[in-house]
Amino acid sequence: MRGDGRAAVQLRPMRITPNFTGNAFSSVLIEMGETKVLCTVQIEESLPNWLRHSRVRHGWLTAEYSMLPGSTNTRTKRERGHTGGRTQEIQRFIGRCLRGAIDLSKLPDMTIVIDCDVLQADGGTRTAAVTGGYVALKMAVDRLLRENRIRQNPLREPIAAVSIGVREDQILVDLNYREDSEVDLDMNVVVTKSGNLMEIQGTAERAPFTQEHVNSIIETAKGALTATFELQEAAQEGQMVEG
Amino acid sequence: MRGDGRAAVQLRPMRITPNFTGNAFSSVLIEMGETKVLCTVQIEESLPNWLRHSRVRHGWLTAEYSMLPGSTNTRTKRERGHTGGRTQEIQRFIGRCLRGAIDLSKLPDMTIVIDCDVLQADGGTRTAAVTGGYVALKMAVDRLLRENRIRQNPLREPIAAVSIGVREDQILVDLNYREDSEVDLDMNVVVTKSGNLMEIQGTAERAPFTQEHVNSIIETAKGALTATFELQEAAQEGQMVEG
Amino acid sequence: MRGDGRAAVQLRPMRITPNFTGNAFSSVLIEMGETKVLCTVQIEESLPNWLRHSRVRHGWLTAEYSMLPGSTNTRTKRERGHTGGRTQEIQRFIGRCLRGAIDLSKLPDMTIVIDCDVLQADGGTRTAAVTGGYVALKMAVDRLLRENRIRQNPLREPIAAVSIGVREDQILVDLNYREDSEVDLDMNVVVTKSGNLMEIQGTAERAPFTQEHVNSIIETAKGALTATFELQEAAQEGQMVEG
Amino acid sequence: MRGDGRAAVQLRPMRITPNFTGNAFSSVLIEMGETKVLCTVQIEESLPNWLRHSRVRHGWLTAEYSMLPGSTNTRTKRERGHTGGRTQEIQRFIGRCLRGAIDLSKLPDMTIVIDCDVLQADGGTRTAAVTGGYVALKMAVDRLLRENRIRQNPLREPIAAVSIGVREDQILVDLNYREDSEVDLDMNVVVTKSGNLMEIQGTAERAPFTQEHVNSIIETAKGALTATFELQEAAQEGQMVEG
Amino acid sequence: MRGDGRAAVQLRPMRITPNFTGNAFSSVLIEMGETKVLCTVQIEESLPNWLRHSRVRHGWLTAEYSMLPGSTNTRTKRERGHTGGRTQEIQRFIGRCLRGAIDLSKLPDMTIVIDCDVLQADGGTRTAAVTGGYVALKMAVDRLLRENRIRQNPLREPIAAVSIGVREDQILVDLNYREDSEVDLDMNVVVTKSGNLMEIQGTAERAPFTQEHVNSIIETAKGALTATFELQEAAQEGQMVEG
Amino acid sequence: MRGDGRAAVQLRPMRITPNFTGNAFSSVLIEMGETKVLCTVQIEESLPNWLRHSRVRHGWLTAEYSMLPGSTNTRTKRERGHTGGRTQEIQRFIGRCLRGAIDLSKLPDMTIVIDCDVLQADGGTRTAAVTGGYVALKMAVDRLLRENRIRQNPLREPIAAVSIGVREDQILVDLNYREDSEVDLDMNVVVTKSGNLMEIQGTAERAPFTQEHVNSIIETAKGALTATFELQEAAQEGQMVEG
Repeated sequence: MRGDGRAAVQLRPMRITPNFTGNAFSSVLIEMGETKVLCTVQIEESLPNWLRHSRVRHGWLTAEYSMLPGSTNTRTKRERGHTGGRTQEIQRFIGRCLRGAIDLSKLPDMTIVIDCDVLQADGGTRTAAVTGGYVALKMAVDRLLRENRIRQNPLREPIAAVSIGVREDQILVDLNYREDSEVDLDMNVVVTKSGNLMEIQGTAERAPFTQEHVNSIIETAKGALTATFELQEAAQEGQMVEG
Repeated sequence: MRGDGRAAVQLRPMRITPNFTGNAFSSVLIEMGETKVLCTVQIEESLPNWLRHSRVRHGWLTAEYSMLPGSTNTRTKRERGHTGGRTQEIQRFIGRCLRGAIDLSKLPDMTIVIDCDVLQADGGTRTAAVTGGYVALKMAVDRLLRENRIRQNPLREPIAAVSIGVREDQILVDLNYREDSEVDLDMNVVVTKSGNLMEIQGTAERAPFTQEHVNSIIETAKGALTATFELQEAAQEGQMVEG
Repeated sequence: MRGDGRAAVQLRPMRITPNFTGNAFSSVLIEMGETKVLCTVQIEESLPNWLRHSRVRHGWLTAEYSMLPGSTNTRTKRERGHTGGRTQEIQRFIGRCLRGAIDLSKLPDMTIVIDCDVLQADGGTRTAAVTGGYVALKMAVDRLLRENRIRQNPLREPIAAVSIGVREDQILVDLNYREDSEVDLDMNVVVTKSGNLMEIQGTAERAPFTQEHVNSIIETAKGALTATFELQEAAQEGQMVEG
Repeated sequence: MRGDGRAAVQLRPMRITPNFTGNAFSSVLIEMGETKVLCTVQIEESLPNWLRHSRVRHGWLTAEYSMLPGSTNTRTKRERGHTGGRTQEIQRFIGRCLRGAIDLSKLPDMTIVIDCDVLQADGGTRTAAVTGGYVALKMAVDRLLRENRIRQNPLREPIAAVSIGVREDQILVDLNYREDSEVDLDMNVVVTKSGNLMEIQGTAERAPFTQEHVNSIIETAKGALTATFELQEAAQEGQMVEG
Repeated sequence: MRGDGRAAVQLRPMRITPNFTGNAFSSVLIEMGETKVLCTVQIEESLPNWLRHSRVRHGWLTAEYSMLPGSTNTRTKRERGHTGGRTQEIQRFIGRCLRGAIDLSKLPDMTIVIDCDVLQADGGTRTAAVTGGYVALKMAVDRLLRENRIRQNPLREPIAAVSIGVREDQILVDLNYREDSEVDLDMNVVVTKSGNLMEIQGTAERAPFTQEHVNSIIETAKGALTATFELQEAAQEGQMVEG
Repeated sequence: MRGDGRAAVQLRPMRITPNFTGNAFSSVLIEMGETKVLCTVQIEESLPNWLRHSRVRHGWLTAEYSMLPGSTNTRTKRERGHTGGRTQEIQRFIGRCLRGAIDLSKLPDMTIVIDCDVLQADGGTRTAAVTGGYVALKMAVDRLLRENRIRQNPLREPIAAVSIGVREDQILVDLNYREDSEVDLDMNVVVTKSGNLMEIQGTAERAPFTQEHVNSIIETAKGALTATFELQEAAQEGQMVEG
């Protein structure tokens, strides 16, 4: 059993609060255990420069990620002078995954910006951002359709993410901060609802890992995220859901 | 009557949620109508350079302010390359006011950092930050005393703030975003519990104003903030309060 | 009596030198005691982005403020990597005040830029910048009218500014650097020639202040600035004036 | 067959030139087809701040990555004002992998900096940097041992990297730039000489991928890199090698 | 004859005002025709990092250069985000020349900072900065000696600078802005009082130049600067001088 | 005789490798002794802002210079946050010289960008960049003519550069790094093939220098560069040449 009483393949309690704030085009607060990420979607009537001048015109989706100074035990300095490497890596990961969930060729000239701001951090902030970000994205697309700003649904299928570690050859699902610093291997797995993979990213922390580890992790991720996909779907109705 | 049904001198409904997040040393979510600001306090065991080398050594208090990109109807760009003038002006205002509430000579070598992050903006974010920031500061000082990290209470007396406008010669209390863009004069008033002034800042928006306006505004502010001081005190007990 | 022999409500000797330099569209050197600020006006045939795309098109006025490295006893570092909070706060103050002196709707597509560069600092640089900046602005507007670049005078009425402090309950007018560090309350008051207020900004430095203080300060400011308005008017004729 | 005549699982011709330049502590030019990356190692007698103040002191290894402006068909702008997200992500990847190849606890107080500068880019620059960077790292460690600056060999085992793509369900090894833009899935695989994994990173470019893809890619990577490990070992002798 | 009535080898009227401002350690306003540069010297009790850690410890001298926004007909943008190439080149030139006038080994641990701020620009700002900067430097050294902060005079001999152009094979001394844009060759010559050279810098603007041009220019510079050296010496007495 | 066995007026062995890399529009690796600089040319279909809005439209040429971190014995920090003064001065020098070799009025709307990246530094990197940069420029112009992107040859005549020092009154040609730190005077001379001067830049390092020094240096430079002009011409044929 783990420090917080969970079984090895058990996710932390998850709560998704749609419409947590009201000014953004759509907004979702996702909580995975003590990790809390606010995902908001804004629509901008502009395109990045490189796309505006490209032959094939279509819309764009991008993401930004940031940790609030008060989200951690020791204050996290604001990134005002520059954007740090970890932040850039994470926001590129989130943007890439959510961009994969959408068929950009069906999106007219607009940029969907997904902001993931970590209110409290206890491990797994990037996977929480993908899972919660998808809900906010779905709600934004529904609203764009309702308001006739787009004609067809550009979404492919739902995606969700989870971090999985290996500690002394044991698979551990949905690592919290303490566990994250103890594992030998840390992998982020992004899965589609139909059971395919959108992204995998694994790093040996202490010792190299094996192909068998990879297979166990992928299978565990698929299993663990089944409940998450249900929660995502329920949350889109607009009420807070827990699971 | 005003657009949202309030009387001219009526504050918006206020809600203070202490311990909204758990990693920071103390934390408070303050809501004034649709404005929501998360105030967190962190303690750093270091001092700014200029103070470390000064003859009279004591602790320090500083504040930072930021608006989340999703806090507004149109996305607010993150200030990652620089810190904008408005942000700097506001966080200097917040830091100055809260520093005034504390006797720094009673604070040993440490820096109290108060981060005010706007989750949703509808006018009055800087005054909400001062009012909520004081509660977070009080809770942090109580904890420092409890944990024997400081020996004596450095706080002077509670402070609270409100923005007051004049529209066609009528005094309007606690302006929301729409009202803020319509007034002829916009003044921020920071008051101590005993009825003195900590800071006043008024700018003619459309036409110059008079000494009579200043007097009416100060008196109105003192009256309106009486209820706020009670709410602050109740919130320090650790439960969400509304008023 | 004060350290420099002045009475409590006495301004320092003031000198205004119009056309101190010749390349700028207009230029004024203002000296208040040992404080010397060079105010220059330049006209740019462009507008800030947000205004260019707004529905109601009109001109704009903005200000920048900077202290020369040699203006202080200890060298002031150039702000080349960033613009500090104090600088931003002051230049926003100057811009806001001078913008209030002009009816922007009467100004066609152009930006009036007022640069206030402190050659020597001895307290009150921001109020000197407002007072001297107004003279430079008036001279620039006169020249724009003469050169038929604008058709109507957009200026409302003259403004001037003074800093006033309270030390042990005594009102002190036009603080120099040493006095500025000793007062309990420091307030900047910007007045129109007809006796109304354009901006007030007061901060408790050591202890909270009272409504009575505010009233005394405003009345004192109005009185003290009478001579200043006369000096401003005389200087617009193009000759150095002292008072 | 592929555009450049290779079989699907065939690497591009590889050339490793040790001591390509002479001022750096060690240096290697690695060429994979038309991709050319200069890897240099420098030793710094300092540690990052966070490590200097940590309880467990040991050495550090970090990497930087950059593309020369002339390395691409269209000029790549120098990153002088900031460091772009792609650059940060890649250099974190390189640093992480090479750090995994070394037992930092056996490294005394020093920072090994590995600079990977792309002279010419035709796909696979980050995997070339890992493969060539390992050779430069091995040569630097040998020299540190020879010069008695370290006592024990901190290296674990050799690592090498390759990018593998899937195009219409066919596995393609060591993608060049054109192929990289055509694949449905792009995965970077970092392998140890004994056949374990140091890092895998796969992103769906056009459509989600399957667990079977992951397994085929890992097996193909292990097979293809056998020859690379031999080339690395030969290059450490100090002569240019090709394979 | 030239546009402003001068003979080809004639300098513009020069005026040097010592103690133009009073807070800096020493200060000089130098005017060459319509060019006006304020040179101030400050003493810092610190050394640049590279020097603090070097084997041979001695003092340092550095210069900074900047143009005020109002110094030109078209507003010169403040360099707040970065320092432009022209500015860097010029301030390195000024620092190099003035450093050459001083024997650093005779200067104890301190940094002499010379700030050259252009109040009005009409060509020749960098040579005016060197000529005026030397006077400010001399006055600062005299004061350091007087205040016993240094024991021996570290100055070698006076230096002065002038820009010289060639227009259709005619030598023109001390170019103003308009002339500067018309010449085929523009050379800055820095001379010591004894007639040697401290720096020469010549650039073909329209067509290559000859060794004969170089010789004529150097001889002309030596001749023209004789009067300048006399003016420098007179100014050190503390009164404004003109020539 | 010198440390490396050369006569006082002897250049170091020079090698020019055209087409060292293949993606840039043209590319040259130039080696002067142990100094190695990669010069690449790229063509951009855009103009700098100030030129796009000028009355007389023509093309532009600019240069950038950078040292690789591994180019020196002690690692050279990447200039990612800013561009240092030395870098700016050098790249302005290179751009100015190569711009002088071309008649911009014969160049249609395009910007020729010459990037000079130092792979290994042993003194004379800026003069190597000019000499090698001219070859890359010539090759680029030939290609533009061949591809009919320009109609007429805008090149004037070949240029080449060399650094020359004076050590104890002896002229030393083509200084390496160690010599560069020992000379009393360091001068960079840029010569045209017909024996005229494009730029001279000399700085007294230890003691002022004389007009005779300048004359000796110019004559020595002309003589020494004769062989360099031949090498440049040979290299344009596309094969590596040495001399």
